[in-house]
Amino acid sequence: MNFVIVRYLIGWMLGIESIFLLLPALTAVIYGEPELPAYLIAAAISLAGAALLCHRKPKNTRFYAREGYVTVALCWLILAVIGALPFVLSREIPFFIDALFETVSGFTTTGATILGDVEALSHASMLWRCLTHWVGGMGVLVFMLIVLPLAGGQTIFLMRAESPGPSVSKMSPHMRDTATILYAIYFGLTVLQMILLLIGGMPLFDAICVSLGTAGTGGFGNWNDSIAHYNSAYLQNVITVFMILFGINFSAYFLILTRKFRQAFRIEEIRVYLGVIFVFAGLIAFNVRPMFGSLRESFHHALFQVASIITTTGFSTVDFDQWPTFSRALLVLLMFIGACAGSTGGGIKCSRILLLGKSVKKELMCLIHPRLVRVNKMDGQRVPHEVMRSINVFVVAYAFIFILSLLIISLNCEDLVTCFTSVATTLNNVGPGLSLCGPTCNFGFFPPLSKCVLIFDMLAGRLELFPMLLLFTPGTWQRNK
Amino acid sequence: MNFVIVRYLIGWMLGIESIFLLLPALTAVIYGEPELPAYLIAAAISLAGAALLCHRKPKNTRFYAREGYVTVALCWLILAVIGALPFVLSREIPFFIDALFETVSGFTTTGATILGDVEALSHASMLWRCLTHWVGGMGVLVFMLIVLPLAGGQTIFLMRAESPGPSVSKMSPHMRDTATILYAIYFGLTVLQMILLLIGGMPLFDAICVSLGTAGTGGFGNWNDSIAHYNSAYLQNVITVFMILFGINFSAYFLILTRKFRQAFRIEEIRVYLGVIFVFAGLIAFNVRPMFGSLRESFHHALFQVASIITTTGFSTVDFDQWPTFSRALLVLLMFIGACAGSTGGGIKCSRILLLGKSVKKELMCLIHPRLVRVNKMDGQRVPHEVMRSINVFVVAYAFIFILSLLIISLNCEDLVTCFTSVATTLNNVGPGLSLCGPTCNFGFFPPLSKCVLIFDMLAGRLELFPMLLLFTPGTWQRNK
Repeated sequence: MNFVIVRYLIGWMLGIESIFLLLPALTAVIYGEPELPAYLIAAAISLAGAALLCHRKPKNTRFYAREGYVTVALCWLILAVIGALPFVLSREIPFFIDALFETVSGFTTTGATILGDVEALSHASMLWRCLTHWVGGMGVLVFMLIVLPLAGGQTIFLMRAESPGPSVSKMSPHMRDTATILYAIYFGLTVLQMILLLIGGMPLFDAICVSLGTAGTGGFGNWNDSIAHYNSAYLQNVITVFMILFGINFSAYFLILTRKFRQAFRIEEIRVYLGVIFVFAGLIAFNVRPMFGSLRESFHHALFQVASIITTTGFSTVDFDQWPTFSRALLVLLMFIGACAGSTGGGIKCSRILLLGKSVKKELMCLIHPRLVRVNKMDGQRVPHEVMRSINVFVVAYAFIFILSLLIISLNCEDLVTCFTSVATTLNNVGPGLSLCGPTCNFGFFPPLSKCVLIFDMLAGRLELFPMLLLFTPGTWQRNK
Repeated sequence: MNFVIVRYLIGWMLGIESIFLLLPALTAVIYGEPELPAYLIAAAISLAGAALLCHRKPKNTRFYAREGYVTVALCWLILAVIGALPFVLSREIPFFIDALFETVSGFTTTGATILGDVEALSHASMLWRCLTHWVGGMGVLVFMLIVLPLAGGQTIFLMRAESPGPSVSKMSPHMRDTATILYAIYFGLTVLQMILLLIGGMPLFDAICVSLGTAGTGGFGNWNDSIAHYNSAYLQNVITVFMILFGINFSAYFLILTRKFRQAFRIEEIRVYLGVIFVFAGLIAFNVRPMFGSLRESFHHALFQVASIITTTGFSTVDFDQWPTFSRALLVLLMFIGACAGSTGGGIKCSRILLLGKSVKKELMCLIHPRLVRVNKMDGQRVPHEVMRSINVFVVAYAFIFILSLLIISLNCEDLVTCFTSVATTLNNVGPGLSLCGPTCNFGFFPPLSKCVLIFDMLAGRLELFPMLLLFTPGTWQRNK
């Protein structure tokens, strides 16, 4: 393990965080709120940490998957620890474990909260919560672009980015450019949403916070009743559309920007993603029809909830925990499916589900026609064996983490549905679950042990599991020979 | 598809079933019960079917995986349909779908019942229910020995049977002998259990039924309170031990019979299986300690329930649905783990879980030491890539069937825990679930659609999924060119 480079990179991240911490400080100044010192102290600590860790450039720049994974896992954890300080210092969230839960939930773009009354927060803290979503979402894009490929082999995240034929080879040298373009898309979409929300009459501060939360597919809001507060079909529809947009594989925007429209619309994952959204929304709309005035209204809310859950954002316009079992089961299923790979959304990801489905279909075809040789294809290209293997291992690790978390949570939780959905909603970075952790409830009642498990799950889910697993594997911490 | 051979083999199975149907008929004679004609008519129909289907020996004996799988799926289904007739004819279970549920549950060794009052049944029907378990368990042994290997590649079921080194090559030509030895072990263990139960003072009829149910890892009993009825620690302990024995990979007995003790005790799967049983029983014993008089009693019941669920038998000595969430979660987990491959138990199987765990460990090691080349090993032998692939495909198909079933059940079921565990307990061939389908309840309240889904799940779980999936794949039904 090359500790020097890990230390150096973490220092860099702390530097960036100290800048972001100035934004809520500025908000506190604007609204004349007493939380100003808390944010300034946190920014100072973050800057000091950066200076300490970055004072010397590392000579040994060897950087393998192990270093990449550990750096990412530690970055997210340390950013969250520093990010939790203002909440504790300002006494808005007095207990550290609660504050940590809240910031981990923010940086992992989960959106699960321990706060019973969000509206009691200062504007500075409201902005900081939503900003953590946005920063986390941005971090995920880098992570998938730069860190995951280090593990060697092709990852599903880059498959589509690489598919534009002849330009594949050009991508790697231009990694920096690609990252810049991705950020531009991310930033542009966020601003566009903000403008559209302002046009609909949403107050500026709310528009900023909601857009930051949507972009990161986070889900923190400024009101206890989430998006139901904005009793306007226009605003809710704008948010629905942008949730869906932020759940799409960003390489599609990349293709559209380079005018490769046909390729962009041919991406199988996105077709499946949109298909699932509309089919599920349709099924739910019929199932919950008796609860609303018209089929139109029923579909409106069904689509919002489906878009919110599949993109793992976690906003809500109604208390879907009151919906019939069939609809609730569909929503829980959506938590697991998740958004497209290469987006800011979480979950298992549509492309993984798609490829797993194809592997079963292939098996059946092989049984029927034993002499036929079949290969799995996606977007017209053969799927390398290595990709299938990594998906399978991912799913198994996912199941093991899920089960172990569920068992620990069940030690202190009487309701199996709460246990199950609390793990599902954190491991998939969604936000709300069902029953005691439903959309009108919060995670405050969980005992500290359960909160620690859920914090681990949020981080593991966000970082594609293995970085967090590596942290707990003794071999990781051996020095390089 | 070679329809002729499929038809011929189904005919043979019907012939065998007609013989087995004479046993409950004999019971009806002994107890002077009015259900005698029902069983005689069913036997006659079965025999007529056999005569009709077997009247001509097939010339084309081509028999590939496709034919094997379809034969097995149809056999189980047709046996259950014929086996359901006596219940309907005798009006003991007047509705055909209920009677079919009961016999499918029997032949698949599940043990889930739709009967609210088992004790109201005639002795003939009680015996027939338990006999279906025993026949089903025997069928599973043939299925794994003869049909599954047709798909080509190695299956996990034969891995251990093949491991006794130099004698590997000798096994295939002696398939018939192997089957005979397996049956001898199965029969011998059943009789041994019967004798031990009789020594403990259990009435002969009960001893027969309980032993048949234990051997098939089924779970039908003659009393509404299952094994709690026999308020004797000795009897319950005998059943615990035999449940565990019938969940062990039968190739271990094969090795022991051929005096290869060291190899038998080295089988990794069995170590994991026994380890899981004792660790889980220990954890549950501590968790439910306050509900019993002593830790000894607590462990006694914990071990019985754990053995019953992991072997997917489904007997119970207490209403474990009243246990704390942690214990219930552990029991649900055990449903999925299941018994050893190559036993009469269901579930995903210990060897699959073990190999999946090893694949995650390997992935972590590869991340830490990228230059290391690692292979998955089991029992000291390299696990072929084909085995890992088939396990992965199995798990994916399993998840898809599980989710689709859950969604259909949730249409008519208000409680998510009932939906989830009803599918888990049928797909894994356990028997009781939690909540509304817990050990003191029954499956009678499910609407016909849900019962059909659960019947499919029991068959799919019992036959390692793919035979049932093939039935619903159009390509299966094409004639051979």
